[in-house]
Amino acid sequence: MRITVLAGGVGGARFTRGLLHHLRADGVTGKEVTVTIVVNTGDDLWLNGLRVCPDLDTVMYTLGGGIDEDQGWGRADESRRVASEIEKYGRGWPWFLLGDLDLATHVVRTDLLHQGRTLSDATDLLCRRWRPDARLLPMSDQPVETRVRLAAGVDEHAAGETIHFEEWWVRYRARVPAAGFVQDGVASAEPAPGVLEAIHDADLVILPPSNPVVSIGMILGVPGIRDAVRAASAPVVGVSPIIGGAAVRGMAGACLRTIGVEPSATAVAEHYGARSAAGLLDAWLVDDVDAGSVPVLEAAGIRSAARPLWMRDVPTTAAIAAEVLQISASV
Amino acid sequence: MRITVLAGGVGGARFTRGLLHHLRADGVTGKEVTVTIVVNTGDDLWLNGLRVCPDLDTVMYTLGGGIDEDQGWGRADESRRVASEIEKYGRGWPWFLLGDLDLATHVVRTDLLHQGRTLSDATDLLCRRWRPDARLLPMSDQPVETRVRLAAGVDEHAAGETIHFEEWWVRYRARVPAAGFVQDGVASAEPAPGVLEAIHDADLVILPPSNPVVSIGMILGVPGIRDAVRAASAPVVGVSPIIGGAAVRGMAGACLRTIGVEPSATAVAEHYGARSAAGLLDAWLVDDVDAGSVPVLEAAGIRSAARPLWMRDVPTTAAIAAEVLQISASV
Repeated sequence: MRITVLAGGVGGARFTRGLLHHLRADGVTGKEVTVTIVVNTGDDLWLNGLRVCPDLDTVMYTLGGGIDEDQGWGRADESRRVASEIEKYGRGWPWFLLGDLDLATHVVRTDLLHQGRTLSDATDLLCRRWRPDARLLPMSDQPVETRVRLAAGVDEHAAGETIHFEEWWVRYRARVPAAGFVQDGVASAEPAPGVLEAIHDADLVILPPSNPVVSIGMILGVPGIRDAVRAASAPVVGVSPIIGGAAVRGMAGACLRTIGVEPSATAVAEHYGARSAAGLLDAWLVDDVDAGSVPVLEAAGIRSAARPLWMRDVPTTAAIAAEVLQISASV
Repeated sequence: MRITVLAGGVGGARFTRGLLHHLRADGVTGKEVTVTIVVNTGDDLWLNGLRVCPDLDTVMYTLGGGIDEDQGWGRADESRRVASEIEKYGRGWPWFLLGDLDLATHVVRTDLLHQGRTLSDATDLLCRRWRPDARLLPMSDQPVETRVRLAAGVDEHAAGETIHFEEWWVRYRARVPAAGFVQDGVASAEPAPGVLEAIHDADLVILPPSNPVVSIGMILGVPGIRDAVRAASAPVVGVSPIIGGAAVRGMAGACLRTIGVEPSATAVAEHYGARSAAGLLDAWLVDDVDAGSVPVLEAAGIRSAARPLWMRDVPTTAAIAAEVLQISASV
């Protein structure tokens, strides 16, 4: 069985860890399952000349056992000696500090990229150490940068200007009104090698509880990927990142409102759309508190079920993954 | 008064610190003195995609108060978290570990170089933090790499092959027989901006107790620099790096023997040569134990004196610098 997951950072990483736990530890399927994760690279940035890939690294560290569990991103047992030295040189973005252990990943990746290797290659090499038990694919080997068009000026930025997503997200905590998101470089980007095949050949495609706008939305924005999901022979199952009107984690609400989507389990599913109506979803899981969404979405052609969706720990997340497998069998 | 020093790493750095102490703390000259240090960049290397400049950094840290005093190179209070992570990715040279604090310097410099800035510019910017109280100039902005031609095979290297100087020095502790040194890229290299002027305009040129072959020799090998020293209107004074037949520090003996020069205070001075005989030196300081050299060198046209030359600490080194100023006044 082949499962393909489209993922951003923390939410997608934790969901996939639960999925792998369900598949390996619970051993429920009784057959070999390979998992491919197509990861958002829109948040990638150059920082002090180093290529930083927040989502790829969050997924890699989470699945490889190196993640800072409390934060959800970055390395456990982290320190910031190099970053504080770099600051003393007056360089870098003081609001985006790099940990020392994390920095090693960026140094190795940047070295490979400067040698002419692709981001896919670099990711492969980094994963040889972390052995994530899944294949990690960047959504594209070309840089496609998520930028935020500001609705209002802030600090040195004028209204209407675009800033890197990480600046909006990390520096401004998504609190500066955004007029929209731009995928810089997307027109000439291609899905990374293996991405379209992973979707085409999948027995199940999952949209985990990642940010529907700036994570999964950016993956779907790479030319060819949305069409591939729509054309997939496998069922496409999503897990709501919204529980009771609030993003499970992070500031997804601000992103949804920016594109005119209400932050609710129903509205996000409708934003993805039913495959039967030229959308993406065959099925959708909402949390128990959003059980009222189920009949609405079923009427819209999306097979739906209400289940406990808080990813409190690996076992509860594995149970959510089990529900995804189960509902996928019913579409 | 303008003093120009041609320096390698530890020896040149410590000497120059003593010189500055003499000029500033002792305040003997009573007039404004500026010090320019032309630094060997032949040992520079790319390591994990980062540009490492061992001699520039040793001089900068020593004069800026950041040096590891015991080692003589690298940063005080250093750790190696990033390097040990990089090793886990199977990358890098395990015999050349980078410290975390030191790494910040390389990250900033590499970022600047990739932005198209010169090594001179990058050095300026780094020095804004360290305020070395002297102007540091790389010998050249073009990479000129000191490579060692092996006289015998070792590990994966065959006899006759050339390897980077740092590999020979750090990995093999200069114990693998060398057939010679090569300055890769020297033909198309130019002195960095300001180097020739600093020599031409100097009131005193000093060859400190740096390695005469792979430090000062490499600086002199950059087209134009040796001629500039020979043509300088200022006296050129050297300090012997050899005391009683042994290099004060490091493995200079192996370098000297490789080029057929006996490791002695006399032979090194003769290797530089008297200016009156198309060489470089007007004067030369030897240690008290090498007092026998003095009449030999005086006969060869090099004003010489025997003085205590062990750079035990800053005050004793300042005293050596005072002797350099003194002998320079007598030529």
